[in-house]
Amino acid sequence: MSNMSRCLISQVEVQNFIERCMMAVGTKQHHARSLAEVLVEGDHRGHYSHGLNRMDMYVKDIQTGICAKDGEPVVEKESAATALVDGKNLLGPVVGNFCMNLAIKKAKEVGIGWVVAHGSNHYGIAGYYAMQALKENMIGMSFTNTSPLVVPTRGKECTLGTNPISVAAPAKDGDSFVLDMATSAVALGKVELHERRGDPIPEGWGCDAQGKLTPDPKKVLSGGGLVPIGGSEATGGYKGYGLGMMVEVFCGILAGAKYSKHVRTWKVTDRVANLGQCFVAINPENFAPGFSDRMSDLLSIQRGMDSADANTPVLTAGDPERMNMKKCEELGGIPYHINVVNYMNECAKKIGASPLLPCDKLVPI
Amino acid sequence: MSNMSRCLISQVEVQNFIERCMMAVGTKQHHARSLAEVLVEGDHRGHYSHGLNRMDMYVKDIQTGICAKDGEPVVEKESAATALVDGKNLLGPVVGNFCMNLAIKKAKEVGIGWVVAHGSNHYGIAGYYAMQALKENMIGMSFTNTSPLVVPTRGKECTLGTNPISVAAPAKDGDSFVLDMATSAVALGKVELHERRGDPIPEGWGCDAQGKLTPDPKKVLSGGGLVPIGGSEATGGYKGYGLGMMVEVFCGILAGAKYSKHVRTWKVTDRVANLGQCFVAINPENFAPGFSDRMSDLLSIQRGMDSADANTPVLTAGDPERMNMKKCEELGGIPYHINVVNYMNECAKKIGASPLLPCDKLVPI
Repeated sequence: MSNMSRCLISQVEVQNFIERCMMAVGTKQHHARSLAEVLVEGDHRGHYSHGLNRMDMYVKDIQTGICAKDGEPVVEKESAATALVDGKNLLGPVVGNFCMNLAIKKAKEVGIGWVVAHGSNHYGIAGYYAMQALKENMIGMSFTNTSPLVVPTRGKECTLGTNPISVAAPAKDGDSFVLDMATSAVALGKVELHERRGDPIPEGWGCDAQGKLTPDPKKVLSGGGLVPIGGSEATGGYKGYGLGMMVEVFCGILAGAKYSKHVRTWKVTDRVANLGQCFVAINPENFAPGFSDRMSDLLSIQRGMDSADANTPVLTAGDPERMNMKKCEELGGIPYHINVVNYMNECAKKIGASPLLPCDKLVPI
Repeated sequence: MSNMSRCLISQVEVQNFIERCMMAVGTKQHHARSLAEVLVEGDHRGHYSHGLNRMDMYVKDIQTGICAKDGEPVVEKESAATALVDGKNLLGPVVGNFCMNLAIKKAKEVGIGWVVAHGSNHYGIAGYYAMQALKENMIGMSFTNTSPLVVPTRGKECTLGTNPISVAAPAKDGDSFVLDMATSAVALGKVELHERRGDPIPEGWGCDAQGKLTPDPKKVLSGGGLVPIGGSEATGGYKGYGLGMMVEVFCGILAGAKYSKHVRTWKVTDRVANLGQCFVAINPENFAPGFSDRMSDLLSIQRGMDSADANTPVLTAGDPERMNMKKCEELGGIPYHINVVNYMNECAKKIGASPLLPCDKLVPI
């Protein structure tokens, strides 16, 4: 692939394209925009597995009616600091924005807002919602359960999703800490990429159908599964398993949504997803003064230390995404593989939406 | 050591012993009891590194005056759902109990209580505080920062503590999920144990002074450090690093306590610890009905699945501790290594406290 290139597309155009495709199948405009904003932010931050690349999945969800195209989320139960929301089977970002706004509103009043939703759908990158709190100088958190893809320590069946955790905390001058991580050792997409290339995977990414760690990506993808962060039991995989369970407690269990192996199979949209999600905002004003100064110092301590290898500086969570966004700004757009652009334009054609308009520039891979 | 045995001591006697030793150096009785309860619970649950074994450290903290023996924690700032507490440099368990009770009280009123403390000290096992919420059928969480022992991904300096996360959630009939984990791959004690035995450690536990993973426990203990859960960067160590930072945000940063490398060196008590800690209670009544039924089903799914090896069943967080407590109940006490008992009795003698009274029974190691 080294002699191929990538198309550069402006962020605005990617967002408009997703919006018009979603509207072409009947999504309300403000719902389509919510989804488009989350997906383009995924690509902008370098998480291509959670961006434009997944648009066809959302289009299909609306087309088949498995995801609702009309209505708004509803608060079912509420206190000054908490809420339970029925997502009404709307697009994940519609539910996510509704809940995160509510959490921030509560945190302004009583210092914290803890909002959980059932009846939701895939919501893109978890970090998008956590980061909304940064605009208000608050800590934000977001969690979602997902289809079963992870095998618990000692087990040989996928009974947990990749159940991500995101925590964002504001530092000075727009700087921030943004943790956005699956509780599996790696994302499924990384294993798929190794399989396509015919490369082995590092020990500690996935297991075969017998629950044994394997370097063979094929075995992970057919009958096996991802393993929790930490890998084997000896290296602490039970901790990643425990964190995946924690996310399930905050999401499926607290919200009364589907959970664990009751969540529908990944990419099989035979029934409503009914995902559980959790959104939290915490106002540092309710705690010790000087929060953002200490955050900046904490980030400086890590970034400023000597690194083991001079070519790879010590980073903090959110720095790789920051570097990717800077690259996009320098290029003047988001670089996409030509195959992705062609595939998405095929999708658009089928539903009568106008195609993506790439910039003239091509970027070497 | 295989032909040696362990002394059996009743839980009540261990607790009374710790109480009388702490009182012998001037600790107020109810403070001494708070500490004794947490430490004995550590041993009872099988976490010997956080039990009687550490009593001498707390005795020294009070003797030298580096930890306050008088006073009570004070609420500095409060809302319906949050509080900032000054621990007044009291024993960690005194601060921890105060904060967790406050968090539970708030959760009864508004569904959640999020309480952080500065001016605290070592508080024993994090799970002890999270589990207080179980008595009220609530979810409990507890976090603390600790002395720097962990080297961030790509780094070669310890700038984070083992920063534990504990989350407890109630299921039916007294069953529960109790996650209580350091965000390092393993505890320092495990590395020390391998060093004493002359055994190598598994790859992914610790690194040398150059930040490279090493199988040599000596290198980890002299100039190197523990690594975050996930091990190397390739196997997801940056996730464990991110989680350690998250705990620091909730503790040192939010509370305005010492944080990161500003926390005093492990076992060096030249200055006040001023640890930051975070305590959370969440009332499931504020969310979807049927929480404990779903929790029980979630635990059953994991425990009920076929395991990769028939000799090691799939567990959920808290099960190993439950098995250890059952063993203690069957034995009729907590088994301790004779060296630990002798060492503690030496300590007691120096401060004029009466010695531990073991049962007659010896238990093979």
